[in-house]
Amino acid sequence: MAIEATDKVIVIALDAMGGDRAPDAVLGGANAFAKKHSDVNFLLFGDENILNDKLSHYTQLQNQSQVCHAPDVVDDAEKPSAALRKGRHSSMRLAIDAVRSKRAHAVLSGGNTGALMAMAKLGLSTIPGIDRPAICSVFPTMKKSCVLLDLGANVDCNVDNLVQFCIMGDAFAKVILGRETPRVRLLNIGSEDTKGSEIVKAAAQEIRDGGYDINFCGYIEGNEIAQGIADVIVTDGFTGNVALKTAEGTANMCGHYIKQAFKSSPLAFLGGMFAKRAIKKMFKRMDPRYHNGALFVGLNGIAVKSHGYMDEIGLQNAIKVTYNLAKYDINKKISSELMHDDESGSGNEDILLDTTG
Amino acid sequence: MAIEATDKVIVIALDAMGGDRAPDAVLGGANAFAKKHSDVNFLLFGDENILNDKLSHYTQLQNQSQVCHAPDVVDDAEKPSAALRKGRHSSMRLAIDAVRSKRAHAVLSGGNTGALMAMAKLGLSTIPGIDRPAICSVFPTMKKSCVLLDLGANVDCNVDNLVQFCIMGDAFAKVILGRETPRVRLLNIGSEDTKGSEIVKAAAQEIRDGGYDINFCGYIEGNEIAQGIADVIVTDGFTGNVALKTAEGTANMCGHYIKQAFKSSPLAFLGGMFAKRAIKKMFKRMDPRYHNGALFVGLNGIAVKSHGYMDEIGLQNAIKVTYNLAKYDINKKISSELMHDDESGSGNEDILLDTTG
Repeated sequence: MAIEATDKVIVIALDAMGGDRAPDAVLGGANAFAKKHSDVNFLLFGDENILNDKLSHYTQLQNQSQVCHAPDVVDDAEKPSAALRKGRHSSMRLAIDAVRSKRAHAVLSGGNTGALMAMAKLGLSTIPGIDRPAICSVFPTMKKSCVLLDLGANVDCNVDNLVQFCIMGDAFAKVILGRETPRVRLLNIGSEDTKGSEIVKAAAQEIRDGGYDINFCGYIEGNEIAQGIADVIVTDGFTGNVALKTAEGTANMCGHYIKQAFKSSPLAFLGGMFAKRAIKKMFKRMDPRYHNGALFVGLNGIAVKSHGYMDEIGLQNAIKVTYNLAKYDINKKISSELMHDDESGSGNEDILLDTTG
Repeated sequence: MAIEATDKVIVIALDAMGGDRAPDAVLGGANAFAKKHSDVNFLLFGDENILNDKLSHYTQLQNQSQVCHAPDVVDDAEKPSAALRKGRHSSMRLAIDAVRSKRAHAVLSGGNTGALMAMAKLGLSTIPGIDRPAICSVFPTMKKSCVLLDLGANVDCNVDNLVQFCIMGDAFAKVILGRETPRVRLLNIGSEDTKGSEIVKAAAQEIRDGGYDINFCGYIEGNEIAQGIADVIVTDGFTGNVALKTAEGTANMCGHYIKQAFKSSPLAFLGGMFAKRAIKKMFKRMDPRYHNGALFVGLNGIAVKSHGYMDEIGLQNAIKVTYNLAKYDINKKISSELMHDDESGSGNEDILLDTTG
């Protein structure tokens, strides 16, 4: 079956070879998602022999996908420059090209982040006024969710980058979370103006003095992220990646503690049995797999990154995020927002997060 | 009562005015600690009128403390250079001076981190071979605890700083956690050699090539911190501060989720009642207040930092950490370790963490 990207069917180009558990986690995740959504089709990029062989285990996916042969795989240790040079026939690059040529609405990869960034930037190009795309995701807090960027696309950022991330994050929060005047904050190690790195301080100064149409509310510290005092949190890709992953690791550890607590005595075990349903729901809320899938914001095309270590459930959620972003035509809306066309304000938080059920 | 630092009594100089909830949280924490430890005395630095007035509410502390008048307070927004210049009569500076002049075994402050670092470095001076002290603390994981540094003393770090932090962290883990050959890792945003910032990559290269007597095990990512795959995790002060505080905020959020879960239905509530004891214990394990108190490692004297936002319980734990570090004469042991005197290996994890009861 030849798959075509139309208004009726969302076509997602999957880098089937990207990620630690590829291709099984990718195929399994896509298969599970296809079972629930008849209006999605997948272009599966990777070694056709491997993929065709594996596909026999995923009957639903067989009906809603097409294997696209890609002889190469971008290695996780490859530098972005080398990946660009050597990876022209890689599953990652060909999947991105499918978006470029409008064969797919969006691309999803769990592969090498730096390579994905470089290839997506080259293949899809950036929105006017944006120097570098950023990885952007919705993050749960104790109140409403917030937007966090950059999550790892740009290790070193200058003042202009951070300012542009604030503008993109602001647009993303308006469009995706439906916040009218998002509270934008810069991640820092103190709340006072004198604290933090020179670049963060200079970025704050620039946003305050530069006449940007942003509701900039100053700094935010790591412990305040979960408090829900910001709608948009901006930082460089190194710090953002560490913050995101540390939060995930801590949530996992808390889950581990909870399990231990309910095993610690017969009475606690009994209590756990009574509260089983509530505990299960809570675990889902804390589980990083249900928050997987981050957009490369700032590109002329939808490119989504999954954590490399994610399993089938994590991949399924990243596919859901990709599907919703494509269905919602997120990039067009963000571009409009950035160009002040003001089509925003109709967002819906459910688009990216699946934490309630 | 004149307080003297002897072998029998541990004397702690408290910056009673440092921190968001000072002096009440400081005095309350000290009072609670004094009730349990007759072998501790406090020098309370701050405005004598305020402190003497407040002290009337803390009868135990009255008996085990002496107010030392300090007319000034270092403002949280003060730059370190300005604090050094203007803060000669501040509670922070005079408390540090008490350690310098051997009137106290250790100093504890919840005040301005940059100012504390600058004053402590000037007042106590660094151990030979160490350019900059780092803030170092023990961090819980799913397995054994690990040592994390720098937690915020040095916003920008060069290669030499990171290498020295590895050496100090190694010594700290040997002495405090009793690890024979601590697994030392650099915090990064990928596990492959090509990933991360140039400084982190150069530091890894230097440690591998420089002939250091360290069991360097490569990089660690944020989500792996809680997995217990390292004994020592080294990063710059900006990233470390964000990671620590993000972990704390996430643990608080998980606690919030747990409470919500047990309120979500009558059955869950009943389950929570059965498991009450286990849940309470788990909350204590997850509570950042019980992990409060970090050492400025690399100084010729014990200076401990409390989070500024901590309450009485957090302060009490930071005092416990300070007391144990002083009792254990940690700095002498770390200096010995750094000079390869090899008096190490007799550590005890309980020294810094109070998470089990």
